[in-house]
Amino acid sequence: MTVKVAVAGASGYAGGELLRLLLAHPEVEIGVLTAASSAGTPLGQHQPHLAPLAGRVLRETTPDTLAGHDVVFLALPHGHSGAIAAQLGPDVLVVDLGADHRLAEAADWQRWYTGDHAGTWPYGLPELPGARAKLAGTKRIAVPGCFPTGGSLALAPALAAGLVKPEVSVVSVTGTSGAGKSLKPHLLGSEVMGSASAYGVGGAHRHTPEFAQNLGAVAGERVTVSFTPVLAPMPRGILTTASASLASEVDTTAARAVYEKAYADEPFVQLLPEGSWPTTAATLGSNNAQLQVTVDADAGRLIVVSSIDNLTKGTAGGAIQSMNIALGLPETTGLSTVGVAP
Amino acid sequence: MTVKVAVAGASGYAGGELLRLLLAHPEVEIGVLTAASSAGTPLGQHQPHLAPLAGRVLRETTPDTLAGHDVVFLALPHGHSGAIAAQLGPDVLVVDLGADHRLAEAADWQRWYTGDHAGTWPYGLPELPGARAKLAGTKRIAVPGCFPTGGSLALAPALAAGLVKPEVSVVSVTGTSGAGKSLKPHLLGSEVMGSASAYGVGGAHRHTPEFAQNLGAVAGERVTVSFTPVLAPMPRGILTTASASLASEVDTTAARAVYEKAYADEPFVQLLPEGSWPTTAATLGSNNAQLQVTVDADAGRLIVVSSIDNLTKGTAGGAIQSMNIALGLPETTGLSTVGVAP
Amino acid sequence: MTVKVAVAGASGYAGGELLRLLLAHPEVEIGVLTAASSAGTPLGQHQPHLAPLAGRVLRETTPDTLAGHDVVFLALPHGHSGAIAAQLGPDVLVVDLGADHRLAEAADWQRWYTGDHAGTWPYGLPELPGARAKLAGTKRIAVPGCFPTGGSLALAPALAAGLVKPEVSVVSVTGTSGAGKSLKPHLLGSEVMGSASAYGVGGAHRHTPEFAQNLGAVAGERVTVSFTPVLAPMPRGILTTASASLASEVDTTAARAVYEKAYADEPFVQLLPEGSWPTTAATLGSNNAQLQVTVDADAGRLIVVSSIDNLTKGTAGGAIQSMNIALGLPETTGLSTVGVAP
Amino acid sequence: MTVKVAVAGASGYAGGELLRLLLAHPEVEIGVLTAASSAGTPLGQHQPHLAPLAGRVLRETTPDTLAGHDVVFLALPHGHSGAIAAQLGPDVLVVDLGADHRLAEAADWQRWYTGDHAGTWPYGLPELPGARAKLAGTKRIAVPGCFPTGGSLALAPALAAGLVKPEVSVVSVTGTSGAGKSLKPHLLGSEVMGSASAYGVGGAHRHTPEFAQNLGAVAGERVTVSFTPVLAPMPRGILTTASASLASEVDTTAARAVYEKAYADEPFVQLLPEGSWPTTAATLGSNNAQLQVTVDADAGRLIVVSSIDNLTKGTAGGAIQSMNIALGLPETTGLSTVGVAP
Repeated sequence: MTVKVAVAGASGYAGGELLRLLLAHPEVEIGVLTAASSAGTPLGQHQPHLAPLAGRVLRETTPDTLAGHDVVFLALPHGHSGAIAAQLGPDVLVVDLGADHRLAEAADWQRWYTGDHAGTWPYGLPELPGARAKLAGTKRIAVPGCFPTGGSLALAPALAAGLVKPEVSVVSVTGTSGAGKSLKPHLLGSEVMGSASAYGVGGAHRHTPEFAQNLGAVAGERVTVSFTPVLAPMPRGILTTASASLASEVDTTAARAVYEKAYADEPFVQLLPEGSWPTTAATLGSNNAQLQVTVDADAGRLIVVSSIDNLTKGTAGGAIQSMNIALGLPETTGLSTVGVAP
Repeated sequence: MTVKVAVAGASGYAGGELLRLLLAHPEVEIGVLTAASSAGTPLGQHQPHLAPLAGRVLRETTPDTLAGHDVVFLALPHGHSGAIAAQLGPDVLVVDLGADHRLAEAADWQRWYTGDHAGTWPYGLPELPGARAKLAGTKRIAVPGCFPTGGSLALAPALAAGLVKPEVSVVSVTGTSGAGKSLKPHLLGSEVMGSASAYGVGGAHRHTPEFAQNLGAVAGERVTVSFTPVLAPMPRGILTTASASLASEVDTTAARAVYEKAYADEPFVQLLPEGSWPTTAATLGSNNAQLQVTVDADAGRLIVVSSIDNLTKGTAGGAIQSMNIALGLPETTGLSTVGVAP
Repeated sequence: MTVKVAVAGASGYAGGELLRLLLAHPEVEIGVLTAASSAGTPLGQHQPHLAPLAGRVLRETTPDTLAGHDVVFLALPHGHSGAIAAQLGPDVLVVDLGADHRLAEAADWQRWYTGDHAGTWPYGLPELPGARAKLAGTKRIAVPGCFPTGGSLALAPALAAGLVKPEVSVVSVTGTSGAGKSLKPHLLGSEVMGSASAYGVGGAHRHTPEFAQNLGAVAGERVTVSFTPVLAPMPRGILTTASASLASEVDTTAARAVYEKAYADEPFVQLLPEGSWPTTAATLGSNNAQLQVTVDADAGRLIVVSSIDNLTKGTAGGAIQSMNIALGLPETTGLSTVGVAP
Repeated sequence: MTVKVAVAGASGYAGGELLRLLLAHPEVEIGVLTAASSAGTPLGQHQPHLAPLAGRVLRETTPDTLAGHDVVFLALPHGHSGAIAAQLGPDVLVVDLGADHRLAEAADWQRWYTGDHAGTWPYGLPELPGARAKLAGTKRIAVPGCFPTGGSLALAPALAAGLVKPEVSVVSVTGTSGAGKSLKPHLLGSEVMGSASAYGVGGAHRHTPEFAQNLGAVAGERVTVSFTPVLAPMPRGILTTASASLASEVDTTAARAVYEKAYADEPFVQLLPEGSWPTTAATLGSNNAQLQVTVDADAGRLIVVSSIDNLTKGTAGGAIQSMNIALGLPETTGLSTVGVAP
């Protein structure tokens, strides 16, 4: 099978990571690449690491330029995917890396974003219960946010098994690429290096309702999520520390058993050996999520730590994994379980 | 007043930071500097940033070499201060930057450390209720751990005011200097840069009982602490995200009022203007703690974020602040409220 | 003496560093602070590390707002100082941190910058031969560029002593703050971290004529300068590797003797002990320059390595050092020889 | 073809990078992995990013454990390869990533290293003139040092074409992984981050004779090399600034033409479009070298900047590229021309 793929938003970080991975995908032919203000310039100016595509000229993001492909990836700012997607044919597989089609409730969309709610598409986190069935054969995929990817993988097994109460606390340390290439003063290298900072504190981050949606579905009840992202001086990676009160007395061995079972057959999730804790470097550039679980008996809480690469498993890798499922390809096609370290 | 000061452990990070600050202290004369394996070598080999002391030769850490000073700072590995301190006269002000004299309960000491419990000394976090009275005129000071400094400042006002339930969750992102100059593989630059990692998870970090001791005293009841440190790629700084369930319905304005009142007269604690969140860079090299507070109404939790420099306010600056109180000097003498950024 | 000081351009990195240092200067009272697009906002929004000035509101940069001060520092984009300075009275000490008054030759200015040449002022690198005499009592100071500061200190003694031929090669590794807070894609944290890159290669950097001017004056003949700056993932610091062919056979001992003599009485220049090499961390936040010298007998070249903090000795610290001389204050007043490390 | 490969020194950075690349090599089966002090432990403890090999137990590095493979990679400390290699059969392809078999002159070896000179093997930098012919079918490969890789690629075309005089100056900014996992204080994260430092200055670095050997062969005459490595705060990457006096008047266009011709058919070398300058991030994890060339007419020098990943093209990727040639495989098999950025 050769699948012809277009990428809208090829000059940004998500678009660049998509292309990095698609270049290694044996069933993919890379077609049109589009951008907004960078249209008309060669990709090499924006993504010098993608040497084989350096001479490709970026086109404008329109339904016309995106026509004629089997798969269209939309790596656009939030609120821009809905309109474009509506003009792409029903036979094209559209994979939206933005937030537009993630939230089921219009009220959630309107509280956290602006503009009209574009509706919900099958959610591209295959490791969640029931997700693969909805992704198989679909023509529309909503790629999860990077934080809900790392956090949902950390907490879903515990909530599904009833290990913890439905009030979770999540602190995620993230690299800067999650904020994209936007030219904001606090994202300058001089500001970022040597500094950690919190933002979107107190339930203010837009990924909060997505967390609640994922975890509530798994738990079968409403789950309260206290989520705080922390910006750290690294380009990539999310290290999530998630915790919740134990629902009943459980020790670490029993908790690990729940996670071992949940992820035994997952190609991209590794529960680390006891005593080893995740580092983001170990997942860098791979589609892996690495986890460790422990019980703090004194505090009566389950603590789960997960690491992912925000651009790979957290964005572009997860998107391709879901594309593979939708197209009927082996789920791991073109994706690596090997990180780039040190 | 001129105070003659010795520093034991001058080749390490805590010792280096002490000397950096003491060089700017108008009432201090720097006396003997000691080290362990580096004894006999010039300080400049270990602390090239301390240009005025580059030629000073390090001596061995013995009661004899430390004799004849008004103040002795002990920046030694845990478990080494007790024996030395016992041999220093009762008229010498001994300031222990290690853990040996922090914990009141021998059982806590024995669970978290090794060797005999050396007893408790007045605790050098002046911003805690009642601390200044115990420090005034004392000849023995136990300098707090860096994490309990940032975390106690974040949570004490809320617990003292009964804003939150006595079950707190603390995730602290820390620079690498907190781990000292020990030659461990995971502290190599190649491992640290570009990576975040959790350690001492699940109540396993030695600062956990110190947190509980501080917060319990403030709350007037036992406080459960779930504490997770996260190592981030920066040399200095601790950014703490602390949270707890609200005890009753409180909004952000009311919560801020509690913190404003608690820290109104504190020279080294700044509650940031609403909408601004702490960064570690802003406190780097200063003795400041910067805080912000918010209420997450959906999650029913109070979230407090604090930033400090782990070596300054979290170690050597806090030590000198307490020394000033003990000696009857103005508390801010020789300490800066100005950070080094970017 | 109390000197009332204004800072134009207080929201940028150079302005912030000036204020950090001026806050510690015993003879200075900080007056009006101005900015361009940030006028009307509190300084704390832009420089959260300057806690004591957080509430100061920035004013517009006009001759009127800057009137009534003993000293005015201009930390403005290149080409903006000339016009403002011309409107400040002859009795005000004007210290220009921009390039406008550095170059003696109008032709140099016109080749490397835009707009009219504003003329030359006494050059604020006191360590150069004859500089102090021109700075004493002056009312106008041109602060050197950060690269020419580190590079001229590295090469001046060798050229003055005739150790090397007048063709020098300079590669300077710099932190990102030298580029200011300008919002350019290549300065984003995501781009900078984990990457080194060259720019302004092949004699294209604007500091090249300043190098040639400084070194030519010292050598007493035209000096050819091949200068390449390299951007490294750190906020501050310049590490310069400078080299030139030996004019005659000289060994390291003899070369060191030349540097020892040249800098024996300099309070801010340290020739390190043999075998020690400069690191930028050791000078961070201080007004120091640290140097080491060696002869590569195989290659027949002298190699000099220098480290400075680009914002301190390379900009704001050097500016204050020269201000002290101009005002007749002890040259080291308010300046530190102690770095902030690690 | 399936080639069975052993890796001696699998717990280090070079060994880890070899395995990362070999896991993606379609013709390779990974056999025995060995280590020194880590023998007996699972690879996952040392290389958590190599998830598919996490359970592999490291064996001791002996001729016996390494027997029975088609290819043996030796990623051992300098001086350790010679003895092992002598005990591996003549039909095994031995690829030495250490320095033992790089230098042709025993006198060079004895000056720069310790122990006996092990002799010279075909040199694994295929882009050098004549190198491929020596590598084809060979059973012994000496992998170049990381600095000579980046520097020789930068300078060889200019010297071969007689563009410059045979006296070159090379300053290479390197990430920390080049120093390996050795536990030295100056390699700690706290020391490295936020700091640049020079080392091995003045012709003292062991790669200097290798530079001279490579460049002398290309130039057809003795080439004098002034080489200075600079340690920068990043895990990977080498950015080399190389320069030399022009032999005759040449402009940038003519110089570029020489490089275009030299590298036109090279799959792993990219001369960037005029105006673009190399960054190490763009080559991270790939086997690419990116170059840019310019003439500084004022200084009369040619300046070439190159970027590579020290662990990939500079070590393990270059080793596999040479292995491919030796085995008669397409040279690019299993190697990527796509970097991991940001």
